[in-house]
Amino acid sequence: MPHPILVVGSVALDDIRTPFGAVQEAFGGSATHFALAARFFAPVRLVAVVGTDLDPAHLAGLRARGIDTGGVEIADGKTFRWGGEYGFDLNARATLFTHLNVFEGFDPRVPDAFRRSPYVFLGNIHPALQERVLQQVEPPCFVALDTMNLWIETARDALLAVLPRVDLLVLNDSEARELAGEPNLVRAGRRLLELGPTSVVIKKGEHGALLLREGDIFASPALPIEDVCDPTGAGDAFAGGVLGTLAASTEPIHVALRQAIAMGTVIASFAVQDFGTRGLDKVTPSGIEQRLRELRLLTQFGSSPSLEATRAR
Amino acid sequence: MPHPILVVGSVALDDIRTPFGAVQEAFGGSATHFALAARFFAPVRLVAVVGTDLDPAHLAGLRARGIDTGGVEIADGKTFRWGGEYGFDLNARATLFTHLNVFEGFDPRVPDAFRRSPYVFLGNIHPALQERVLQQVEPPCFVALDTMNLWIETARDALLAVLPRVDLLVLNDSEARELAGEPNLVRAGRRLLELGPTSVVIKKGEHGALLLREGDIFASPALPIEDVCDPTGAGDAFAGGVLGTLAASTEPIHVALRQAIAMGTVIASFAVQDFGTRGLDKVTPSGIEQRLRELRLLTQFGSSPSLEATRAR
Repeated sequence: MPHPILVVGSVALDDIRTPFGAVQEAFGGSATHFALAARFFAPVRLVAVVGTDLDPAHLAGLRARGIDTGGVEIADGKTFRWGGEYGFDLNARATLFTHLNVFEGFDPRVPDAFRRSPYVFLGNIHPALQERVLQQVEPPCFVALDTMNLWIETARDALLAVLPRVDLLVLNDSEARELAGEPNLVRAGRRLLELGPTSVVIKKGEHGALLLREGDIFASPALPIEDVCDPTGAGDAFAGGVLGTLAASTEPIHVALRQAIAMGTVIASFAVQDFGTRGLDKVTPSGIEQRLRELRLLTQFGSSPSLEATRAR
Repeated sequence: MPHPILVVGSVALDDIRTPFGAVQEAFGGSATHFALAARFFAPVRLVAVVGTDLDPAHLAGLRARGIDTGGVEIADGKTFRWGGEYGFDLNARATLFTHLNVFEGFDPRVPDAFRRSPYVFLGNIHPALQERVLQQVEPPCFVALDTMNLWIETARDALLAVLPRVDLLVLNDSEARELAGEPNLVRAGRRLLELGPTSVVIKKGEHGALLLREGDIFASPALPIEDVCDPTGAGDAFAGGVLGTLAASTEPIHVALRQAIAMGTVIASFAVQDFGTRGLDKVTPSGIEQRLRELRLLTQFGSSPSLEATRAR
């Protein structure tokens, strides 16, 4: 039986424009994308805050997908809104607006029923809030944490304070270089391990992901997706695939983590193919299986007979 | 027996500064790095031009490593000189000076003894010169071509004219996007295939390489090298590993190409660990074997039992 996962993060309404179209007030946020990905593998418990303006159909949609919304507080005010625009190169994103609204006063409260969650995902919120969540859960639990450049720059001490309690740090490549103060990505990953987490996953978008652990390193390319439509939330969907796989695994952690990164890669490949959370709605077990097979084939090469030539020369 | 490889490109003296040190008048150039990498796998024949100022020890060094310098013209004047500086982030490079000298009037002449070369590497020179080399070699031969943003921008027609005669196009990711006019790298690769070559290899530096063929795609991460010292020439060393492996292989091309990219990745990992061509001097058969093993392990993941969980949900 897969273990339950507690996720704490943002729930938002996103305005997104890419060269391939636009959506307004799409249901999103880090916790939403994570939950909608992780739920394929394990029970998911959501702690977040929304405003009274949120269409109840959104939360009902989460519940219909098996996500426990018992930790979603409905606060007086408006739901967090974010607007972003991607250029022709989907790697570059401009934030058009950020209206924190009720998210500004977010003080995550973990319901009693959620306190024993063997897996915890601390979505990208202020590290002091991430710390406060950890004070409310019962150990032992496997803790994964995502962060961003904003907190690295403005709340570095709080971030460094919470990292020793983290098992798996998830961040993107520019954040890894910035937090470690080291441009070589492998060295940056090693430095991050010294800050507390036993595993670090560095997300590289179209270039895949790197997993670093003491004495081990794993690299996954991204799947070659030609119709990337909207990368919003792909990193959280990736993390959802990773944590979901870990929570459902009975393998030793070093084996499970590689499988988990592969699964996160597969889930993220679905996520980017449509706007908002729509890509995740198209995930099927057979689709997962096929892309896992593709991912495995993608990096396979035979043993090289040219080595014999080398030896002969 | 490995087949001979003809390489045509630049031979230069490089001034290189990186945060890890500096060298002056280091023996370099695209053809040099390529030849010193390919020679581990197959006989290499070099066509290039140098000035009368070049220390004869450099060419003697190539010959001592089994490279046939019979196509190196010694012209009146000075050898091509290039100066570059890398920042703390080795991905960004500033060119300090480019003195073409005798390279400016380079008109490659392929000696009779080189005309039957089953493998040809057209290093990064003007596409009209690359075309002129092809007019001098006897088909059939497997032709690989490298190019750069300068030619894509200033000699696009000449480049498009030579591409139909090319089997393998080798270029880096920004060049691939620019030549294809397409930011999605996979789609860019597919468009480049439409321009003539049957295979395209996109070099992504620290993120590895992508191989695209009709109906097939292969991704190799870079090896996790923590002590990257000087990336100059790494792309040419990569290509040398690729062509060398192909020239030594008896496998079908689609199998050989994957092995070749893996080998190019391994050779490039040695190349970046020292200045100029010094890294390549440290390549040994056992070193190659170990890094090939590391590369294979780097992307391996077990079959995921969490799929069962997915199915059950």
